[in-house]
Amino acid sequence: MSSLHPHAIAAQSFVLIRAGLAERGKILPEPLSAVVERIIHTTADFEFADLVATSPAAVEAGVQALQSGCVVLTDVEMVRIGINRQRLERLDGTLHCLMNDPAVLPADAAGGLTRSAQAMRLAAERGLLAGSIVAIGNAPTALEELLRLVEAGVCPALIIGVPVGFVGAAESKAALAATTTVPWLITQGRKGGSTIAVATVNALLRLAVGVGNDEL
Amino acid sequence: MSSLHPHAIAAQSFVLIRAGLAERGKILPEPLSAVVERIIHTTADFEFADLVATSPAAVEAGVQALQSGCVVLTDVEMVRIGINRQRLERLDGTLHCLMNDPAVLPADAAGGLTRSAQAMRLAAERGLLAGSIVAIGNAPTALEELLRLVEAGVCPALIIGVPVGFVGAAESKAALAATTTVPWLITQGRKGGSTIAVATVNALLRLAVGVGNDEL
Repeated sequence: MSSLHPHAIAAQSFVLIRAGLAERGKILPEPLSAVVERIIHTTADFEFADLVATSPAAVEAGVQALQSGCVVLTDVEMVRIGINRQRLERLDGTLHCLMNDPAVLPADAAGGLTRSAQAMRLAAERGLLAGSIVAIGNAPTALEELLRLVEAGVCPALIIGVPVGFVGAAESKAALAATTTVPWLITQGRKGGSTIAVATVNALLRLAVGVGNDEL
Repeated sequence: MSSLHPHAIAAQSFVLIRAGLAERGKILPEPLSAVVERIIHTTADFEFADLVATSPAAVEAGVQALQSGCVVLTDVEMVRIGINRQRLERLDGTLHCLMNDPAVLPADAAGGLTRSAQAMRLAAERGLLAGSIVAIGNAPTALEELLRLVEAGVCPALIIGVPVGFVGAAESKAALAATTTVPWLITQGRKGGSTIAVATVNALLRLAVGVGNDEL
């Protein structure tokens, strides 16, 4: 049984993560390494070191947006609630998830469009997307809808597209990775999920305020 | 891009998951198979078919507790918010996470005891643990504290111990798996997390109300 103090647990965890990455010959550039370390911390799955891909300077774009006090929009409540809201608000950022907004209908009443996809459309209507960080951890359909909005001219500061799943997830992320107009971060293939989206945003927040992964 | 209806996405996903399990020669008994399928659905990681372990009839114990209208207690808010609350409340169950309760102090003010560990102690004091399902997706320290409470005589209906991490997680789950007085479900080793805890509880809820994995 561990009787370590939380500070010591965090520090020791990142010693093990960095050793694991080094063993696997994974040398990632900063600041991307800080994001990948946190994703591995939240999954204990070193495969993510191979799966994470970004457009050039995407991490930097996310950090800069946070330092300017941007909107962070999530596809689902599990992502929203995991984000370090205190740290975000200290940077004058705001946190939104519209999936349970009264304007969002059951999929059957919206021509089969999922609630999280409708929420993306609603966010565009409300002007929340321009300059924002959009974190999609669950719903490929939300990412697909967001890409339609980007094609129509909407321009977030960064899209974190890490939905998980067997139908549509890998394809939606590949489509995001083909985008040249908006910075992006993805996990290639089927793997991803809410915890990966949360870890990514929280890693960007740490970079934005200058708190290392091995600090609390 | 997928333009499938949500019903079709769910059904097709579980066709692929069952095919993937069969390819790997993984034949799991019901009702455990329904839980493992949902964990793979939420992670796209077939390794969980090898990592999930339970005490005898643990899934059945969880389903029975839910059908009797039990308390579900989670270690963190991310697990709480992912659980299908409507389905739980239709069975007269209640959902709790005490980590942000005013009685829970910062770890530094509580002798280094983490907030989620303090929340377990508080749940015991409030009589929430007896006959409950406790779902721990994040904090090994919460599971360690819960095991101390079990040794002291507290008796949940089921402990879902799936914390993730590099320090303490595997050890805390091994300690749970040595328990003979309370039914348990774990993911062996470092892997686990909030989404795995959520998938497990939601799989039990589906079993409790008779809704298959490929239905919405």
